[in-house]
Amino acid sequence: MATPATEATTARSVGKTVDPSRFGPAVALSCRECGERYDLGPRYVCEQCFGPLEIAYEFTGVTRESIASGPRSLWRYKDLLPVPADVAEQANLAPGFTKLVPARNLARELGLRSLYVKDDSGNPTHSFKDRVVAVAFAAGRELGFTTFACASTGNLANAVAAAAARAGVRSCVFVPYDLEQGKTVTTAVYGGTLVAVEGNYDDVNRLCSEVAGEEPWGFVNVNLRPYYAEGSKTLGYEIAEQLGWRLPEQVVIPVASGSLLTKVDKAFRELIKLGLVEDTPYRIFGAQATGCAPVANAFKAGHDVVQPVRPQTIAKSLAIGNPADGPYALDVARRTGGAIEDVSDPEIVEGIKLLARTEGIFAETAGGVTVATLRKLLASGQLDPDAETVVLNTGDGLKTLDAVAPTSGPTVTIRPSLSAFREAGLA
Amino acid sequence: MATPATEATTARSVGKTVDPSRFGPAVALSCRECGERYDLGPRYVCEQCFGPLEIAYEFTGVTRESIASGPRSLWRYKDLLPVPADVAEQANLAPGFTKLVPARNLARELGLRSLYVKDDSGNPTHSFKDRVVAVAFAAGRELGFTTFACASTGNLANAVAAAAARAGVRSCVFVPYDLEQGKTVTTAVYGGTLVAVEGNYDDVNRLCSEVAGEEPWGFVNVNLRPYYAEGSKTLGYEIAEQLGWRLPEQVVIPVASGSLLTKVDKAFRELIKLGLVEDTPYRIFGAQATGCAPVANAFKAGHDVVQPVRPQTIAKSLAIGNPADGPYALDVARRTGGAIEDVSDPEIVEGIKLLARTEGIFAETAGGVTVATLRKLLASGQLDPDAETVVLNTGDGLKTLDAVAPTSGPTVTIRPSLSAFREAGLA
Repeated sequence: MATPATEATTARSVGKTVDPSRFGPAVALSCRECGERYDLGPRYVCEQCFGPLEIAYEFTGVTRESIASGPRSLWRYKDLLPVPADVAEQANLAPGFTKLVPARNLARELGLRSLYVKDDSGNPTHSFKDRVVAVAFAAGRELGFTTFACASTGNLANAVAAAAARAGVRSCVFVPYDLEQGKTVTTAVYGGTLVAVEGNYDDVNRLCSEVAGEEPWGFVNVNLRPYYAEGSKTLGYEIAEQLGWRLPEQVVIPVASGSLLTKVDKAFRELIKLGLVEDTPYRIFGAQATGCAPVANAFKAGHDVVQPVRPQTIAKSLAIGNPADGPYALDVARRTGGAIEDVSDPEIVEGIKLLARTEGIFAETAGGVTVATLRKLLASGQLDPDAETVVLNTGDGLKTLDAVAPTSGPTVTIRPSLSAFREAGLA
Repeated sequence: MATPATEATTARSVGKTVDPSRFGPAVALSCRECGERYDLGPRYVCEQCFGPLEIAYEFTGVTRESIASGPRSLWRYKDLLPVPADVAEQANLAPGFTKLVPARNLARELGLRSLYVKDDSGNPTHSFKDRVVAVAFAAGRELGFTTFACASTGNLANAVAAAAARAGVRSCVFVPYDLEQGKTVTTAVYGGTLVAVEGNYDDVNRLCSEVAGEEPWGFVNVNLRPYYAEGSKTLGYEIAEQLGWRLPEQVVIPVASGSLLTKVDKAFRELIKLGLVEDTPYRIFGAQATGCAPVANAFKAGHDVVQPVRPQTIAKSLAIGNPADGPYALDVARRTGGAIEDVSDPEIVEGIKLLARTEGIFAETAGGVTVATLRKLLASGQLDPDAETVVLNTGDGLKTLDAVAPTSGPTVTIRPSLSAFREAGLA
């Protein structure tokens, strides 16, 4: 989900005095473009150049041991995040530390020497959004917010509504009014406020930006975006720790806004800088759906600028036509010797089924995108089959059943008798 | 799912010589009714009295430390299960060690002093069936099976198909032909054989019993049932370990066949006997849907015999009209001073929504049954509000969306403008 275009450079704050000691190692907000620094607060756009703000840190005393002694959730990395030291004790869904699955069957099928699936469908609401929402809530509470909001059509809506229920705070989730009932239910069931907006997703996003300028609410991916986005780093930390404190040689990451890809790279660089892993080369690959491939298009054309597109793909959780972090994702892929590739909707479906058939992991469409891209990059020689590779699955197939339903039916239909069973030739 | 009625006392074996050292602490099969003992094998019914066979163990060297040094999955309890010592190294989904969530909001709402939700929706295919299937596969491989099968309409089908994919063995899942497409997809996607049978669930079950007598296949809940059922013990072990090696005072468990409830009790008794927990009193409560409450009916009537019923409830994963372990579940509830209670379909829906709203956990209908039963037992005074209580959620709400869809919609629908937002009075 992209940051909605907005005139506002800060959202309305709740008038709480911010205690900087409650943000762990975070010391300031800093503009990604011009470097201008701001005090920690509910800001997200640079007043000087309108660039996006990021968290600036001063890390101290982070060791493998201090991390390993933490909880089995993303809070084991609290000393690398803009959250208070007691974050794990506050009521929260405790996402993260999902499985890094050795994917031997899939590796064999693809001709890869060593492959892992980082399976974020194991999160509480079954997508990686639980991570970013958890960090946004932890920081947002310190900024004084008691209502948390977002615009979303899927995973983010689920994650915000569930996190608010656990935390005992109010949620207000904005969705397009014509969303399928199934997707409304998975957010509404958590009992927060669910606002159906008579318009498309762009209309919903625009309205949220306006509301964020008026109401003292924490919109996780608007005014809390600098904090929110840092949650994605934890995927990178976990991959390294679960490999035994080393970096993989190749990683395949889905690209929507581009933020996840850039944050995994940031996590790897932080771990190197802190001496927690050896400084070994890694290559980062981005995966998009051909029906919404603005970053892949720019990569292949050799452009630095990402031309917006109108999304048309079954991979709805990646369907951001104008990705805010697209240029940064291009930078990472180029700097690390990776690539950004895209795959068609039929290839996505094949990717989902390939992963399910070989590893028993049922991924949502975004996981189909990464697995299909992995296969395509191997076929084109861009991925080294002898290099240790990690592919990300960021969500659960139960949320996107429609993608595989037309091609996933019974093998055979028989009468209820042993003779019918025998005749079917299944033995 | 009940053991299908069958004339056969043993299924066809694959002719493999069974190595008894490959079943961990398991030493024999023993009849639950007459005590007759049999060598470990693909047997499930006593030849003397037609009683169900259970695993007999000789435990050695199990300590809190040996368990704590194991993997973060149900295999940490391998020394208490009929599985080989190297079970964790074989390709499997590594289910278990799901979260025990302190449910402070729900406790407050219900007036309970201390409440935990044991949340098995966090398993790989999002139900507790991954546990029993994992144990059935581990034992079944040692018995020589290379095809694994089951009859199911839901969670078990998903679990078998996914486990087979990961293990690289064949699965053959039998379902009624008129199952909704959504439920077919979540099994078919894993690529095993899916047989649609022109009949109802009873017909499918009968066919499976016949096939089990002919084909050298491991039907997880037929000829592998004694091993399979032991997987449920791990829920009991985990609750005790996650509470810091002690037993809860009250547990609320869903009752389908009744096996899960009896196995949690068995786990608690084993832990006491092995000195791993103190011998403190606990009470076990069973939860059924009123539309399929044969065990609750018998409990309330003071009967030892469970009268079969024709199921009619939204809690389809509990809809076993003739529960094989019903009498044993009655025994456990009575012996521990618990009870078996049932709740209506509207109460089940309310239970799902109550858990979602207070804790951010979206349960399938079976979880709605346990939460609603918890509430009902508190209201009737059968549960002590001051006693530490654990309620089980055995599956994920994403699999039973239909239950809550009619009552989970948007709070409000508005035009896409700030003024419309203001008029809606949401601020």
